[in-house]
Amino acid sequence: MKAVTYRGVGQVALEEVPEPAIQQPDDAIVKVTRCAICGSDLHIYHGHIPGMVPGFVCGHEFTGVLVEAGPAVRAFRAGDRVVGTFHTACGHCAMCRKGAYNQCREYGVFGYGVAFGNLAGSQAEFVRVPHADVNLRPIPEELGDEQALFCGDILTTAYGAVRNAHLQPGETVAVIGCGPVGLMAVQSAFAQGAARVLAIDLLRDRAELAERLGAVPVVASETNPVAQVNKLTGGLGADVVIEAVGGPKTVALAFELVRGGGRIVAVGVTTVESFAFPLATSLTRDIAFRIGLANIHRDIDATLALVAGGRIDPEVIISHRLPLTEAVEGYRMFDSREATKVVLIPDA
Amino acid sequence: MKAVTYRGVGQVALEEVPEPAIQQPDDAIVKVTRCAICGSDLHIYHGHIPGMVPGFVCGHEFTGVLVEAGPAVRAFRAGDRVVGTFHTACGHCAMCRKGAYNQCREYGVFGYGVAFGNLAGSQAEFVRVPHADVNLRPIPEELGDEQALFCGDILTTAYGAVRNAHLQPGETVAVIGCGPVGLMAVQSAFAQGAARVLAIDLLRDRAELAERLGAVPVVASETNPVAQVNKLTGGLGADVVIEAVGGPKTVALAFELVRGGGRIVAVGVTTVESFAFPLATSLTRDIAFRIGLANIHRDIDATLALVAGGRIDPEVIISHRLPLTEAVEGYRMFDSREATKVVLIPDA
Amino acid sequence: MKAVTYRGVGQVALEEVPEPAIQQPDDAIVKVTRCAICGSDLHIYHGHIPGMVPGFVCGHEFTGVLVEAGPAVRAFRAGDRVVGTFHTACGHCAMCRKGAYNQCREYGVFGYGVAFGNLAGSQAEFVRVPHADVNLRPIPEELGDEQALFCGDILTTAYGAVRNAHLQPGETVAVIGCGPVGLMAVQSAFAQGAARVLAIDLLRDRAELAERLGAVPVVASETNPVAQVNKLTGGLGADVVIEAVGGPKTVALAFELVRGGGRIVAVGVTTVESFAFPLATSLTRDIAFRIGLANIHRDIDATLALVAGGRIDPEVIISHRLPLTEAVEGYRMFDSREATKVVLIPDA
Amino acid sequence: MKAVTYRGVGQVALEEVPEPAIQQPDDAIVKVTRCAICGSDLHIYHGHIPGMVPGFVCGHEFTGVLVEAGPAVRAFRAGDRVVGTFHTACGHCAMCRKGAYNQCREYGVFGYGVAFGNLAGSQAEFVRVPHADVNLRPIPEELGDEQALFCGDILTTAYGAVRNAHLQPGETVAVIGCGPVGLMAVQSAFAQGAARVLAIDLLRDRAELAERLGAVPVVASETNPVAQVNKLTGGLGADVVIEAVGGPKTVALAFELVRGGGRIVAVGVTTVESFAFPLATSLTRDIAFRIGLANIHRDIDATLALVAGGRIDPEVIISHRLPLTEAVEGYRMFDSREATKVVLIPDA
Repeated sequence: MKAVTYRGVGQVALEEVPEPAIQQPDDAIVKVTRCAICGSDLHIYHGHIPGMVPGFVCGHEFTGVLVEAGPAVRAFRAGDRVVGTFHTACGHCAMCRKGAYNQCREYGVFGYGVAFGNLAGSQAEFVRVPHADVNLRPIPEELGDEQALFCGDILTTAYGAVRNAHLQPGETVAVIGCGPVGLMAVQSAFAQGAARVLAIDLLRDRAELAERLGAVPVVASETNPVAQVNKLTGGLGADVVIEAVGGPKTVALAFELVRGGGRIVAVGVTTVESFAFPLATSLTRDIAFRIGLANIHRDIDATLALVAGGRIDPEVIISHRLPLTEAVEGYRMFDSREATKVVLIPDA
Repeated sequence: MKAVTYRGVGQVALEEVPEPAIQQPDDAIVKVTRCAICGSDLHIYHGHIPGMVPGFVCGHEFTGVLVEAGPAVRAFRAGDRVVGTFHTACGHCAMCRKGAYNQCREYGVFGYGVAFGNLAGSQAEFVRVPHADVNLRPIPEELGDEQALFCGDILTTAYGAVRNAHLQPGETVAVIGCGPVGLMAVQSAFAQGAARVLAIDLLRDRAELAERLGAVPVVASETNPVAQVNKLTGGLGADVVIEAVGGPKTVALAFELVRGGGRIVAVGVTTVESFAFPLATSLTRDIAFRIGLANIHRDIDATLALVAGGRIDPEVIISHRLPLTEAVEGYRMFDSREATKVVLIPDA
Repeated sequence: MKAVTYRGVGQVALEEVPEPAIQQPDDAIVKVTRCAICGSDLHIYHGHIPGMVPGFVCGHEFTGVLVEAGPAVRAFRAGDRVVGTFHTACGHCAMCRKGAYNQCREYGVFGYGVAFGNLAGSQAEFVRVPHADVNLRPIPEELGDEQALFCGDILTTAYGAVRNAHLQPGETVAVIGCGPVGLMAVQSAFAQGAARVLAIDLLRDRAELAERLGAVPVVASETNPVAQVNKLTGGLGADVVIEAVGGPKTVALAFELVRGGGRIVAVGVTTVESFAFPLATSLTRDIAFRIGLANIHRDIDATLALVAGGRIDPEVIISHRLPLTEAVEGYRMFDSREATKVVLIPDA
Repeated sequence: MKAVTYRGVGQVALEEVPEPAIQQPDDAIVKVTRCAICGSDLHIYHGHIPGMVPGFVCGHEFTGVLVEAGPAVRAFRAGDRVVGTFHTACGHCAMCRKGAYNQCREYGVFGYGVAFGNLAGSQAEFVRVPHADVNLRPIPEELGDEQALFCGDILTTAYGAVRNAHLQPGETVAVIGCGPVGLMAVQSAFAQGAARVLAIDLLRDRAELAERLGAVPVVASETNPVAQVNKLTGGLGADVVIEAVGGPKTVALAFELVRGGGRIVAVGVTTVESFAFPLATSLTRDIAFRIGLANIHRDIDATLALVAGGRIDPEVIISHRLPLTEAVEGYRMFDSREATKVVLIPDA
């Protein structure tokens, strides 16, 4: 089959590789209908993920049709339309039973190399899914595959960040960064009860994308975002701040935007080792701060339902749709920021 | 001043009555800008509220401008635009401290007679508000008075019903009855995270009003609502049912619409003494049922914020706006169902 | 192997039956170390469960050692000490994914006949457990089997009732009935934050058992429980009432004990079809009522941890320990109320 | 009257000062029966609080009898036994209405100088309490004053820290530091549902105090606390860590003790400006961190109820009881760590 493989720093290739096969009784094989290039795929592209040996199949966001199920798979059968979770969980270890699926003892990420479960990726015609009952979800009848695609990663990542903020209906949320994750966070905040979302970006057109989704745009290159958020909140600050960029500067900004007694959740993937947490002022201001990878399994049923009900529109972030055969070009466009989100179509 | 008074069964009058004055140090006097005729005012109109002696001023939904504050009022000053809570609370008794403001030891209802706190109503040019810091809220700058009006009663009643249902984002809510409370429940359900709202009414045009607010209409006179809800939920039933009619038949219907493990909240005001709760089947199906008057003080800040943020549009239910001087006609139209919701304007 | 079988109304027998074998790849076979006779086993004993054909193996509370696991079982291996959930769930259907495991599409109860999943019971030397990863839990090292036994049913049933009441730390809980479920509810209430538990029973010695667990005893045959609870709560009533008897009289009593704005959860298994729910007074008083079977899978990890931590002592309810071979006598004693709780030991 | 006053760095004095009088209609005057010397009083003692001009009356933990109430006080009357909240709130501003009482626009602290509301302290025979309905609570009949004393500060501070950790019943809590706050945290954790508390201190006798309250002692000078907590939690780490010391070292330790997906709450008062928050590892491990001053008004009703119900025993931390006239010696003993907690008795 055709698949996108890692070939070294800055290099991916479209190659012919063997089709995957059932290995365990609870495995399933999924024929991929849609897969996406994710921001974290660029970490691979830039050679930051050590276990990505040349030839390893890339990709972790996908939908498809189940074509074969091991004898222990009970929730699915051949022909089912499914969306995969970007990371896998066993569903039964002590961490999974606590609901901390992203801390599962068998945690793996599709297409992330030998250090993350050694799971061949989904930018391919077929993908093998371990613990299929746990790591797949049926796509609701009323949804196209592309609408379900981001429930397996980027949408649910943003949604989970809002949930981790313990948002109360009626509160005001500031979202820092209006890239794909930020735009998903804007919609997730509304879906979980935000009265207002203040969407902050350096670029006017990005902030305006958020505005079309109902947010109040704050263009940080044209106005002081701290002053602006203060003004918009009657001097209080935002109840919740979602940091969707991923650097110490925007994390520091979050502390200036949040109201006393408020909550900050950082969801931008970062490789920065540490930042200077403002201890003494946070003591007085009573601040909660959380950072963490997505917990897809906890929230994916909610996001699928919200997309199916029309409350969240994940497709707004898609800028390009390409056949899988043009994946190399897709990586180039995404890496150069020509594209905001690329969807690959194996059978195009 | 001019005020609407109760005059006996089926009779209200517009009368000249003395203006109210500060009685306690934490009282405030509010010049009324908008007041509404509420479904529960019809209980008075029909003579069902014993403490309504002839001449008692009616009405409990209101907005206005504070014109005088007692020396112990701290949160407001003359000139502030305010919305009143339809029922009063002291804010400090054991019940209030538990958040059960609707069980306050000093519970009263404006315009509901001597048995409910002996508080002259708000269908008048001025109204006296006891414990003003507790029983008033500032109207957000961006809101007109009419938009804030229903936060003091009908909107927050519906909103609280959804909250009492412990709705989880992504769930499906069935609302029985698309009158004013039902339409507020539809919007409240979305505002609190519902993925879908199934709006049930016998009348097609009422269900279609709900549809315009995003709900899936279910016209119970044209289709079997149980079959329809079952079909729309893949055979499961609704996660949450809000009963917004107020009779034993619709309460019984709620049990047929709710999924196993689901929750029913009845919010329709009823004078029916009891209904046959299906004990054995509910044991198997694991059903929660709640009925209760609104707890305005708990939720009004959230509803004001959601209206200010544009997430809820309370004005959709207003069918008529009349000068206060035409209140008698307003009662007639509302009682005869010519009007769905009447707003009275004292200074029109 | 030896097993207790149903033999007709009022009759059980100790019989030799074939040992169970693995049927599905996710099955496990457990060698039973402890099993109990449960209140709901008496429904069988009295012939109320239609699917209990003569010869069907009884029993659904059990601990044991896993002796064989199908190839798809991942969380357990031979030699593991385990406790079983009295009812089974698949873990992956739409209901399970909502956390409503007791509404699972594959719901079954061990030893409850063909209408409940056709699962041979656990009052036997061996028992087959379907979906073993879902329906078994490891027994914490520090716990004896007997301490873990009730986590699979009666303790977690009571614990779940308290959880369904949305108990807030610091609240006062009234428990009606100090039988085995009631005593588990008393401890569960404290474990979830109750400041006080008022334990009501007609029998003084039962109420005193609750007193030894920290509750305030209320002997309903010696004092008016409504007056007494009122007095103990400063006239408010209990924040939460757990009804652990199972009849319309005690359900009606719950409405008299609960404070305005409070919550009632009925956990007593009942065959009464309905009761007259006091609609109008509950509307004013803002009452939540819930009834439902246990949701073991949701709560068993918490109860096992609380027992392991010494916060709950489930063994207080055991009155008799008998070899499995004396099970017939055990049923007689339990049915006649000579015994409050009988534990059977297969290898005694 | 007699009162303890600040006299400069390392100096307090017992002086004769004028009795306080009602200034606002919602003020009350309380005759102090018990007051305590708090850890944060030592910040004053060491001259770290700029607004503490010489002669300012110290102290913020107190119980007493209300002797005079302004005309707008409704919840109390002369003769009522009361406990004060160490910090004041207005109860009605935007922050208070969000439940963020510790962010109140009128935030003040008794005995903390002109920068904190200019409120004369409670280490005196009488104290004036502004907004008495908001900032006092009735002492339950069954409680002595000394039992209620710490509900106004140190107990509720610790309790709130556990609540901010979103503790789920059945979880394991590690408490770093077994001083007064830590011992209150141990009890608060159990009261809110902890299955186990692991109590860490460098001093064996402090850890053993925690052991007497039900905790597992971990003596950090004798064993590696990380290894020990790991062992006790089967390699997972603690679900929740309460840091009750207040320095960057113990905050850093908290990150090593907490499990993936867990929560850290720092409650030790610190003047350290910042610490290096481990961003990249916390991203992978999904960690929540919160630091903040106590929110007494939110939680004091729960702590009073839990003490009244016998679930928490705050008196275990008292090492010395002295007449108010010996307060100078009390400060010396407390500062030198001869005393762990000193209670002052004005009318002794």
